Amino acid sequence: MKKRNIAILGSTGSIGTQALDVVRAFPELLEVSVLTASANHEALIAQAREFKPNAVVIVQEESYLLVKQALADLEIVVYAGRNALEEVVEREEIDMVLNAIVGSAGLRPTVRAIEYGKDVALANKETLVVAGALIMELVRKKQVSMWPVDSEHSAIFQCLVGESANRIEKIYLTASGGPFRGKDSRFLSTVTKQQALKHPNWVMGAKITIDSATLMNKGLEVIEAKWLFDLDVEQIDVIVHPQSIVHSIVQFEDGSMKAQMGLPDMKLPIQYALTYPQRRPNSFERFNFMDYGSLTFEPADSNTFRNLELAYQSIREGGDRPCVLNAANEVAVAAFLAEKVSFLGMSDLIEATMCQQRKVEQPTMDDLLAIDEETRIVARSLIR
Amino acid sequence: MKKRNIAILGSTGSIGTQALDVVRAFPELLEVSVLTASANHEALIAQAREFKPNAVVIVQEESYLLVKQALADLEIVVYAGRNALEEVVEREEIDMVLNAIVGSAGLRPTVRAIEYGKDVALANKETLVVAGALIMELVRKKQVSMWPVDSEHSAIFQCLVGESANRIEKIYLTASGGPFRGKDSRFLSTVTKQQALKHPNWVMGAKITIDSATLMNKGLEVIEAKWLFDLDVEQIDVIVHPQSIVHSIVQFEDGSMKAQMGLPDMKLPIQYALTYPQRRPNSFERFNFMDYGSLTFEPADSNTFRNLELAYQSIREGGDRPCVLNAANEVAVAAFLAEKVSFLGMSDLIEATMCQQRKVEQPTMDDLLAIDEETRIVARSLIR
Repeated sequence: MKKRNIAILGSTGSIGTQALDVVRAFPELLEVSVLTASANHEALIAQAREFKPNAVVIVQEESYLLVKQALADLEIVVYAGRNALEEVVEREEIDMVLNAIVGSAGLRPTVRAIEYGKDVALANKETLVVAGALIMELVRKKQVSMWPVDSEHSAIFQCLVGESANRIEKIYLTASGGPFRGKDSRFLSTVTKQQALKHPNWVMGAKITIDSATLMNKGLEVIEAKWLFDLDVEQIDVIVHPQSIVHSIVQFEDGSMKAQMGLPDMKLPIQYALTYPQRRPNSFERFNFMDYGSLTFEPADSNTFRNLELAYQSIREGGDRPCVLNAANEVAVAAFLAEKVSFLGMSDLIEATMCQQRKVEQPTMDDLLAIDEETRIVARSLIR
Repeated sequence: MKKRNIAILGSTGSIGTQALDVVRAFPELLEVSVLTASANHEALIAQAREFKPNAVVIVQEESYLLVKQALADLEIVVYAGRNALEEVVEREEIDMVLNAIVGSAGLRPTVRAIEYGKDVALANKETLVVAGALIMELVRKKQVSMWPVDSEHSAIFQCLVGESANRIEKIYLTASGGPFRGKDSRFLSTVTKQQALKHPNWVMGAKITIDSATLMNKGLEVIEAKWLFDLDVEQIDVIVHPQSIVHSIVQFEDGSMKAQMGLPDMKLPIQYALTYPQRRPNSFERFNFMDYGSLTFEPADSNTFRNLELAYQSIREGGDRPCVLNAANEVAVAAFLAEKVSFLGMSDLIEATMCQQRKVEQPTMDDLLAIDEETRIVARSLIR
C-alpha cells in the first residue's frame, strides 16, 4: 500500500482523536495533511504540533490568532471559518478525506472533496442522509471511493468484500437499543438529559449519543445504508442486539448471511477505512465468546421510538424529506440538550416540522442547503 | 460462469442427493458427468435415468449386472468395484469432482482427481485428515481449486472471500454439541445407538451423526481446517453453539471477526461449492432472528468428550497420527453401530489403537494407505 496522505475534518472529536491514534500506530502507512476543529483550539494546537500537518482549520474565527501564534514556529498554514473546510480539502497532496464533522455541516466539504477526486472515509452520516442521491451520483462520476466509518456500515462493507458480483437480498443493521431499550412512552416522558447521555456500550459524542437513545441514529443509518449499498429501503431491517457484538449482517440471494463482529470499539472501523483493503495487526482488545455466552436479538420498537419510523417514512417518501428530517432532528437534539424540549418532544418537533414543509421532489444541492436552513428556522420557531 | 460438468462420488448419500437437488435447480450451470454409489443400486439407477451422466459406478460388484441391464437403453458406461472410482474421475469432460464418499475410502479418488487437474468440492473430510500435507502439496502443484462442502469450512471459506491478502489470527469452528451436550461421563456410559443417532439440528448420514455425538466430527474438522486454511492448530478453537446458526467465524489480524450464518441446511454450502464464486437465488428457507432471539456459545467439553482431545493431540503430534486416529475411529463407529462397543468405549478403542501403533514421521501416500489398513486390523483385534 502506498502511503496515504489524509485530511481529518473534525480531528478533535471522538472519531477524529481515535483516527489520530490509528495514524500514530501506522506511521509507515498514514500521514496527516490537514486537521480541522470546530472550536477546541487547544486540542487542535496540540495535534498540529504532534502530527505536523500542512494546514489546519479552526472553524470558530475568534480563535484564529491564538492558533496562528501557537503554531508560528512550524510550517503550517492556518485557516479560520467554515468556508475554509471546503478550501483545504482541495489540496493537491491529499489522498483521502476523513469526514468526522458532526451534523449536516459535513455535507459541503464532502462534495468538494469528491469534486477534487479525493477518496472519502465517511463518518459524517448526514452527508448521505441529506443528499444521498446527488452524492452517490458524484462519486460515480468522479470515480472516487467512499468508505464508511460507522461500525454498522463498515460491517456491511467488510462482509461485501469479494462479493461484488453477488446480489444482496437484505441487510440487518444492528442497534444496541440505547439506554432506554424496552421502556415505554410513559417512562420516556420522564427521561432527563443526563440519563440519555449514558450509552450502555459505545463512547461517542453528545449528538450521536442522544440519537442512539431515540433510535434516530439507526434511522439515519438506514438512509445512509440505502445510498451506500444501493438498496431499496425495504431491504434494510433494523434489529436490536443489546450486546453490540454483531455490528451488522448481509443476507445474499442464496440465503447465506455474513456478519461482522467484534467488541464495540470505533477504532476498528476507523482503522479499516484508513488502511483498506489491508487489515493491519493491532493490540485492540479481542472479543471472547466466553465473556458473553449469549448474543440476543429482538425487534426494534418503532412505535415507542417514533424517530426510527419517521426516518423510514422520510426515505420512502424521498426527495427532500430526509434532509428535512435531519435538520429538524439536529434542532431537536440541540433543544433537548439545552433542556428546552423533552425526550418525547423531539419526535413531536420533527414530525411537526416535516408537516410544515412542502415536499420538493428532485432537489439540487443548492436546494438542499437552502431547505436545511429553512427547516432549522421552522423547527426553532416551533419550540415554545 | 461456464457450464460446469461434475462427477458426484457418493451420489446416493445425504450430500450426494442434496447435490443433485442443486443440479436440478440450476440446469444452465451444472451438468452431471459421473454418478457413483456404494451399494444403493436402485437409487443410482433412478438418478442415472434422470440426469443421464456419461458414466456410473456401482462399488458393490454383485449389483453390476442389475445396473447395467437397467440402463441398457441409455448411452451410459457402467463400471463396478472400488478401483473404478479412481478411473472415472480421469474423464476428459469433468470440470469438478464432488467427493461425498464416507470415510477414508474417499482418499484415493481425491488424489486421482487432483492429479488429472480437476477442481475438487470436498465433502469427504477424511481426505485431508488422513493425508492433508500431501494433498495440499498436490493441490498447489497441480494448481487446482479445492472447495470445502462441510458447513463449517464453507463458512470460513465464505468469510475469506476477498481477504486473501489479510492474515488470519484465529478461527472458531462452531459445534452444535450434539445430542449429549452438557452430559457427564456417567450419563454417556448408558447411551444407546438410537439415542446417538438423533442429532438435534442436522440431518446427516449415520457415521457423521455418531461422530457429531462424540465430538470426533469436530476434531476431524479441526484437522481439515488446519490444512485447508494453512493454520497452526493453536489458531483453531472449537466453540459449542447449540442453535447451529453461526456456522463458523474468522478473526483477522486487526481483531475484526467475520461469521457466516444461516439455518442448518447442507444445501447451502453444497450450492456454494458447486456455483462458486457465484451465489444464485434459491428458495431455501431463510433464517429469521425472531425465531431465535438468543444465540448461545459455550466451551467444548473435551474432558468428557475425549475424542475431540484425541484429535487435537493427533494433529499436534503430526506425521501419521491423524491417519491412525481416523482409521481407529471408523472401526470404533462401525462397532458402536453394530452394538459391539459402548459410547465411551469408542474413545478407549481409539486411544488404545493409537498407543499400539508406532509413529511414522513423514509418511508417503502409500505409507498412509497401508497404515490405514493396519490400523483397522489392530483396532478390530482390540474389540472384545
